[in-house]
Amino acid sequence: MTYGTLVLLRHGQSRWNASNQFTGWVDVDLTDLGREEAVRGGKLLAEEGILPDIVYTSLLRRAITTANISLDACDRHWVPVVRHWKLNERHYGKLQGLNKAEIKEEFGDDQFMLWRRSYDTPPPAIDPDNEYSQTGDVRYADLPEVPLTECLKDVVDRFIPYYTAEIAPRIAAGETVMVAAHGNSLRALVKHLDEISDDDIAGLNIPTGIPLVYRFDEAGKVANPGGTYLDPEAAAAGAAAVASQGGK
Amino acid sequence: MTYGTLVLLRHGQSRWNASNQFTGWVDVDLTDLGREEAVRGGKLLAEEGILPDIVYTSLLRRAITTANISLDACDRHWVPVVRHWKLNERHYGKLQGLNKAEIKEEFGDDQFMLWRRSYDTPPPAIDPDNEYSQTGDVRYADLPEVPLTECLKDVVDRFIPYYTAEIAPRIAAGETVMVAAHGNSLRALVKHLDEISDDDIAGLNIPTGIPLVYRFDEAGKVANPGGTYLDPEAAAAGAAAVASQGGK
Repeated sequence: MTYGTLVLLRHGQSRWNASNQFTGWVDVDLTDLGREEAVRGGKLLAEEGILPDIVYTSLLRRAITTANISLDACDRHWVPVVRHWKLNERHYGKLQGLNKAEIKEEFGDDQFMLWRRSYDTPPPAIDPDNEYSQTGDVRYADLPEVPLTECLKDVVDRFIPYYTAEIAPRIAAGETVMVAAHGNSLRALVKHLDEISDDDIAGLNIPTGIPLVYRFDEAGKVANPGGTYLDPEAAAAGAAAVASQGGK
Repeated sequence: MTYGTLVLLRHGQSRWNASNQFTGWVDVDLTDLGREEAVRGGKLLAEEGILPDIVYTSLLRRAITTANISLDACDRHWVPVVRHWKLNERHYGKLQGLNKAEIKEEFGDDQFMLWRRSYDTPPPAIDPDNEYSQTGDVRYADLPEVPLTECLKDVVDRFIPYYTAEIAPRIAAGETVMVAAHGNSLRALVKHLDEISDDDIAGLNIPTGIPLVYRFDEAGKVANPGGTYLDPEAAAAGAAAVASQGGK
C-alpha cells in the first residue's frame, strides 16, 4: 500500500487575530478575511488535485469553519469529519483575551517571547472563574480536567499520541487526510513530522490559510522534509507576519 | 434512561429551488436566503434550548451547509457530524435539472403530481451519461449501484433501516439528534414516525429551515404526533409554499 498525503491547514484570520488579542481556547469566529483565506486554501487544493478523504479539526469554531469552507471550495464538503479537543490551540492561560501589544509593553520583549515561544514554560494559569476560562464548557465535559494554561510541550503531549493512534494509520492506508487546526497544534505536529528540536521549534511560524502538504515514502518517513506549501510566496509572507505579532 | 429528542431540519432555499428546477441528487448550493433560513433554524433551537448532541446529514451540499450554519448559530458547531448518502434527497431521475413549470405544462397536472407525489411510481430513469446523473461521482463509489431514479418508497427503503440502526439508538440513549436533510428524505422519516399511510403521505409538505421537533415517551413512542415546529406560523406558510410548487 502506498502512503497517502497529509494536508495541514491553519485557520484564517479570527476576530482576535484582527484585534491582536491572545485567543487560545476562547471560541472566537473568523473575520471575513479569514473566510476568504479558507476559500483560497480550498481552491489551492482543488488546483493541485489534493482532495481530502477525511478531515480532522479541533473543537473551536475558527478551525471548524475553516475546514467547512475550504472543503466546500474543493468540492469535498461531503467527506467524513472528526472533531477533537486534542487538536485545539494551545491554552494561553491568563493571557487569553489580553492584548498582545499591551502585554509586550507591560512585561517586556523577553517575557512576551517566552510566553509565546518557550517550549516548556506555560503562561500563568487562568482563574477558572475568568470570563475567558473554559472550565464548565459542556464541549469539554469528557475531559478529566480542563486546562488552565499550556506550553507547547503540553500540546505535543496531548496531540501527538492522538495523531499517531488516529490520523497516521489513515495516511498509512493511502488516504489524503486534512488537519484543519491552529498555530500551535500544527507547530506541535510539524515538530513531530520533521523531528525539530525543542529549541528550534521556537523559530517555526506557520502562515494562515495556505495548505502545507506532507508526502511519505514507502517506509512512512516524510518524503519532503519541511512539507510543501501550495503557495510558497504567500506562505513566506504569512510566516513573517506571524513572527512579528505583538507590534501595535 | 429517558428518551432524547429528534430535530428534523429541511435545508433552506437552494439555487434550483429559486430557479424552479427539479434537483434530486444534483449538488446545488444554497442561496443567500437559504443561508439565512439556516441561521434562523439554529437561532430557534438556541431560543428553545434544544441543543443537538450530534448531527446527521446527507452527502449533498445544501443539507451539509444548512447543518454547519444552523449548528454555528446555536453554538453547537463542535458536535460530531455523520454524513451518509442514505439521507440524500429522492433521486428525481430524468427530471433532474428540468424546469418544474415547463414539465407541468408539457406533461399536464396529473402526470406532474404523480412524479412529485406518487409513493411508488418513480420518474423515468436518467441516462447515466446525462450531465445531471451521479453515475461515476466519487462520493458514491461505495454504492453497489448509483440510482437512476427513485420514488418515495425507494427513499423509505434505504433511509428507514439506516435510521433504525444508527439514529434511533442515540435517541433511545437520551441524546438530542439533529437530522439535516431534504424534503423527501424527511417525508420518509415523518411517514415512519407518525405511521402515515402510503396514500396520505402525498399530502404532507415540510417547510424549509424550521426545526421540527419530535419527543418520545418512555416506551420510545412519539409523544407529540406530527412533531412540533419551533415557529408554527412560519411553518404553515412554508408548507403551503412547498405544496404549490410548479407554478410559474
